[in-house]
Amino acid sequence: MEYPSKLIEEAVNEISKLPGIGKKTALRLALHLLKSKESDTEQLSEALIKLRKETRYCGTCHVISHTTDCTCRTIKTDTSLICVVEDTPDVMAIQNTGQYNGMFHVLGGVISPIDGIGPDELKIESLVQRIQNAPEEIKEIVLALSPTMEGDTTAFYITKKLKDFNLKITTIARGIPIGGELEYADEVTLGRSIMTRSVYSAD
Amino acid sequence: MEYPSKLIEEAVNEISKLPGIGKKTALRLALHLLKSKESDTEQLSEALIKLRKETRYCGTCHVISHTTDCTCRTIKTDTSLICVVEDTPDVMAIQNTGQYNGMFHVLGGVISPIDGIGPDELKIESLVQRIQNAPEEIKEIVLALSPTMEGDTTAFYITKKLKDFNLKITTIARGIPIGGELEYADEVTLGRSIMTRSVYSAD
Repeated sequence: MEYPSKLIEEAVNEISKLPGIGKKTALRLALHLLKSKESDTEQLSEALIKLRKETRYCGTCHVISHTTDCTCRTIKTDTSLICVVEDTPDVMAIQNTGQYNGMFHVLGGVISPIDGIGPDELKIESLVQRIQNAPEEIKEIVLALSPTMEGDTTAFYITKKLKDFNLKITTIARGIPIGGELEYADEVTLGRSIMTRSVYSAD
Repeated sequence: MEYPSKLIEEAVNEISKLPGIGKKTALRLALHLLKSKESDTEQLSEALIKLRKETRYCGTCHVISHTTDCTCRTIKTDTSLICVVEDTPDVMAIQNTGQYNGMFHVLGGVISPIDGIGPDELKIESLVQRIQNAPEEIKEIVLALSPTMEGDTTAFYITKKLKDFNLKITTIARGIPIGGELEYADEVTLGRSIMTRSVYSAD
């Protein structure tokens, strides 16, 4: 594609490096910025630079935090529970349900040999240390990983690593989503939802 | 949505101001930047700021250009032809076909009373001036506007404005796209393609 200006070409190249944004979308965004106020572009640039330079990760739970009052240190959290997740959006999703008030531990990914990610690239050793050095006893580890081969491998590896600790290891329920039709559920999910059936309560 | 950090929230708010990008996509982009190199974010921010601050529009044809050698002033262009388009991407699209070597004139939009855009908001008067003051005679105006009500209104308005000049006003052909099936074409397009049929040449 031929661009009318070198500046547009450079901006399009940079924007299209972002995931899920191609050259056409990048051009549309660049032209949008050209049409809107100069201060809009300044604010956007500043927010990105600030985000990248000032964001810190909590040394304990590895959740993003730029202050010292990370959720893992606030008092209202139940400190006997740790929910292990792949990444920050998972923490947000679980927090938004309002159904969990324990601590989190972000692994920063899942074991995936194809992508060159082994257990050492993840915060698994850090999880073991954290359980060992916890001021209060950790009673339960909730594995909230994706139901993929990589997620299952990671769950299996973590379970093996933690076998010497006296704690309950649980995993979030897999089953038919609420509002989902049985007819359209895949066999594996349906099979698993039957295997892990629970006692019906009419409350 | 609750964000784990104020910095993420600010970045998400700024990114989601861009057209077609919602909060979820914005969060995905922000987390991508956090994972990639700091220099990537710097380059992106710089490219955006530079684009916004240094981009200039050619005073004659209103095409984006940050140097003085706008396409409307380069010698290889046929200076007796002006193609009138809505915006810069249209210029790029027409240039990429390699089928047009005349000049361009960017209106900056089309007449759209609903959006509060009248003829005075567009570069229509500038087009009239340009034809009047052209060093060489302008022989043809090619209207390449969208086949929408707004595009048609604009084409009609421009045609009226230019009626005193001795020039040919043409419009790009509307018809069945190449590779398109007659069966699936809408009636208006098919009807128009029959009305504006041309002599078949077996070249």
